[in-house]
Amino acid sequence: MARNNTITLYDLQLSTGATISPFVWATKYALKHKGFDIDVVPGGFTGVLERTGGQTERLPAIVDDGEWVLDSWTIVEYLDQKYPDRPALIPHPSVAAQLRVLDAWFWRVATSPWMRCYCADYRDLSLPQDHEYVTRTREAIIGMKLEDRQAGREDRLPGISAELEPLRLALREFPWLGGETPNYADYRILGSVLFTASVCRIPALAEDDPLRDWIERCRDLYDGLGRHPGLNQLYGLQPREDQPEPFQKVQGAGGIHKRNSGPQSTRSESETIGKGLTKS
Amino acid sequence: MARNNTITLYDLQLSTGATISPFVWATKYALKHKGFDIDVVPGGFTGVLERTGGQTERLPAIVDDGEWVLDSWTIVEYLDQKYPDRPALIPHPSVAAQLRVLDAWFWRVATSPWMRCYCADYRDLSLPQDHEYVTRTREAIIGMKLEDRQAGREDRLPGISAELEPLRLALREFPWLGGETPNYADYRILGSVLFTASVCRIPALAEDDPLRDWIERCRDLYDGLGRHPGLNQLYGLQPREDQPEPFQKVQGAGGIHKRNSGPQSTRSESETIGKGLTKS
Repeated sequence: MARNNTITLYDLQLSTGATISPFVWATKYALKHKGFDIDVVPGGFTGVLERTGGQTERLPAIVDDGEWVLDSWTIVEYLDQKYPDRPALIPHPSVAAQLRVLDAWFWRVATSPWMRCYCADYRDLSLPQDHEYVTRTREAIIGMKLEDRQAGREDRLPGISAELEPLRLALREFPWLGGETPNYADYRILGSVLFTASVCRIPALAEDDPLRDWIERCRDLYDGLGRHPGLNQLYGLQPREDQPEPFQKVQGAGGIHKRNSGPQSTRSESETIGKGLTKS
Repeated sequence: MARNNTITLYDLQLSTGATISPFVWATKYALKHKGFDIDVVPGGFTGVLERTGGQTERLPAIVDDGEWVLDSWTIVEYLDQKYPDRPALIPHPSVAAQLRVLDAWFWRVATSPWMRCYCADYRDLSLPQDHEYVTRTREAIIGMKLEDRQAGREDRLPGISAELEPLRLALREFPWLGGETPNYADYRILGSVLFTASVCRIPALAEDDPLRDWIERCRDLYDGLGRHPGLNQLYGLQPREDQPEPFQKVQGAGGIHKRNSGPQSTRSESETIGKGLTKS
């Protein structure tokens, strides 16, 4: 049992003091969800192996009364197994299975493309002693100079935002990915949003993005855990006229995302498509 | 309570007798999951309003001991509320919330692009009396002639398959989207796969696609519910050399989808990226 209700978390931070890693962000929320106080061990990218006494090269890592637990998924499983009387992070195995899909989807359409839009900001905001390491390793992952990869991001950002429509559709119907209350599904996706906030020197989302409500409610949780002053402004993206809308202005006006409650609910759509080919 | 344990389902069928609608497929599985026998009312696209006595223009629709229930999501909610002692389709509200994201994602990257690859097959396979209706309404939705839209599908199919990687990653770790047993998350996504099988005169997925195991296990459920003889061969897609791999051959070899269990699990990746820029 956690001594004094406190669990130690090894953080991965920028020079602003804000957490950068999406996985560490998600883990911070997970620990708070389980009702623990967090003893944060600060630090950046270099020297993780030394800082953790040889336990790990990657973060997050937690220490619970002397017991080391590595990896964000393993930590969540550990917390739910060890503390079953506290609120569940993953209330059903189906939540875990689906969250794997969501997490991999979000990484593919958002986290990874955003990383390529902010990779030089990322390096510039990292701790001075991390600049060389971040440049070298991220350029290896990305395959080019960080400045070259980041260039032209204004052309890409509206399209990345547009890809998030499936999340907007779900959060139109449910207050949280957890359903009536937040759970690790919310924290996992939020982790990537806060990663982006930690490095986005230009906004990633539109001022009036429907996701804003959910993001800001997540940031308010646990005494404003997601409101670190080092985070950047997420909202304010303004696409050019030749670019895609960053989100669908009219959502679910018809088609597969509208419920059929009888002929009165489908008549107008039926009449429109029933007329046949209207565009060529 | 369902009379004789039987619920009536209005089907939406092709000339092969196979169900075409992804929503009707998902509903068939949902009824079987709850342990009901299904009394199928056959039929195609035209005359739904007449066939259902004015109840609905869209299918699925079920009738449970005289009570009409419309819309695939509403039917699932109805079944879980009315029959709470039978296995849950949606075992937790978080499963419903996440499934909305998954469903909208899958529609966007797979169902809808596949529809555009098979839209003329779709019309040709529909019941003779539906040809005119399907042509007119689908050309209105798609915005061009079905033959023109379908053309060039060999160029598009490998890329569509490649987009399904998030699902492959999850099903590498869990036998079902339901976790240890299938639930509506499996049936909902499967519905779109079986829609595709009902119309795909050329294969949509590679012979050795890792999704095949899950798809075939789903098709085996409930005495082979997904094995209608009118379905087409899903597997056998062979991309040209200049096309993307239809799935990632080496999955989770490193990166975010591999668990950190200590320095021995990350060393090789660290050494690779630690060397710095390897491509330019």
